[in-house]
Amino acid sequence: MSRWQPDARGRLQQAALELYADHGFEQTTVSEIAARAGLTERTFFRHFADKREVLFDGSDLLQELFVEAVQDAPAGVTPIDAVAAALYAAAAMFQRRDHSRRRRSVIDANPGLRERELTKLAALAAAVADALRRRGVSEPAASLTAEAGIAVFKVAFERWVTDDDGRDFAHFVEESLAHLRTVTTEP
Amino acid sequence: MSRWQPDARGRLQQAALELYADHGFEQTTVSEIAARAGLTERTFFRHFADKREVLFDGSDLLQELFVEAVQDAPAGVTPIDAVAAALYAAAAMFQRRDHSRRRRSVIDANPGLRERELTKLAALAAAVADALRRRGVSEPAASLTAEAGIAVFKVAFERWVTDDDGRDFAHFVEESLAHLRTVTTEP
Repeated sequence: MSRWQPDARGRLQQAALELYADHGFEQTTVSEIAARAGLTERTFFRHFADKREVLFDGSDLLQELFVEAVQDAPAGVTPIDAVAAALYAAAAMFQRRDHSRRRRSVIDANPGLRERELTKLAALAAAVADALRRRGVSEPAASLTAEAGIAVFKVAFERWVTDDDGRDFAHFVEESLAHLRTVTTEP
Repeated sequence: MSRWQPDARGRLQQAALELYADHGFEQTTVSEIAARAGLTERTFFRHFADKREVLFDGSDLLQELFVEAVQDAPAGVTPIDAVAAALYAAAAMFQRRDHSRRRRSVIDANPGLRERELTKLAALAAAVADALRRRGVSEPAASLTAEAGIAVFKVAFERWVTDDDGRDFAHFVEESLAHLRTVTTEP
């Protein structure tokens, strides 16, 4: 097992998700995950702090992506359009609907994981608000725009992950952004 | 101690909050809370399932209040205005800023309590979306309006609880609602 393994990380994630879905998150051990991926426990712990982090390592990436997109939006762009740019940038991370659907089922089945997911989303909202303030957006506009953006993200994700017509994540971002404008302003 | 105690519940809450703030949530025991309130542990457990629930029993009341206000909004009212009515109705629950401030500090200091608070807010958003759907609002408008309403609630609460000018909760609801309209639509 000392040979270098291509994409050990991806194989561990895939193996973990299958085991969590089939036998439950609590019941699955790191040893089982490693065995299914054809790797050692030691390799597992080189990539992940624990079995929970296998499910959440994408959250940090998502946050970086959001913050960078908000930062990099052109100077003249409104706050909500900077957040919209971040949402479209995030669409690149949501390509594998089966994977996302399975991850969501695993999380939904476990209160501790659901709480963890909510904590990550709250941290995402705070990071986006922070990025907006660095663009010169004042309060409460920065926090409201960030929270509204996360609302769009949550709703778009939920609709994409349960969609059976193969429409991509960006489609649902566009749909939810349009609805957000309508619901907040209709007379 | 068999004598009926007026507002035993309120005294237990007050005692608990003081102890959590002074000594930390983890360090405080139910026995200490009861002693400080001049009551027995048995009385404590007649009112609360555990020491965590002392902090969250208002969340259920808040949810009932929100759902009722959305239900009772006149038929012609737009979804966001039905949610606005719920936010103003909730203002009645936020009168004691010192109490809310102390509760927030206790929760912020403890990751488990923060997760619990986020779970309650997510349940609130789901209940409001449900109430909107029962009014005939379709998806994704119902979920987006509910999430946007909770965003307004979070931002308004944060601003009210840190405000030093004595302005009431309703003032910050109005301010945040106005900003929500602006940030989602400005050109």
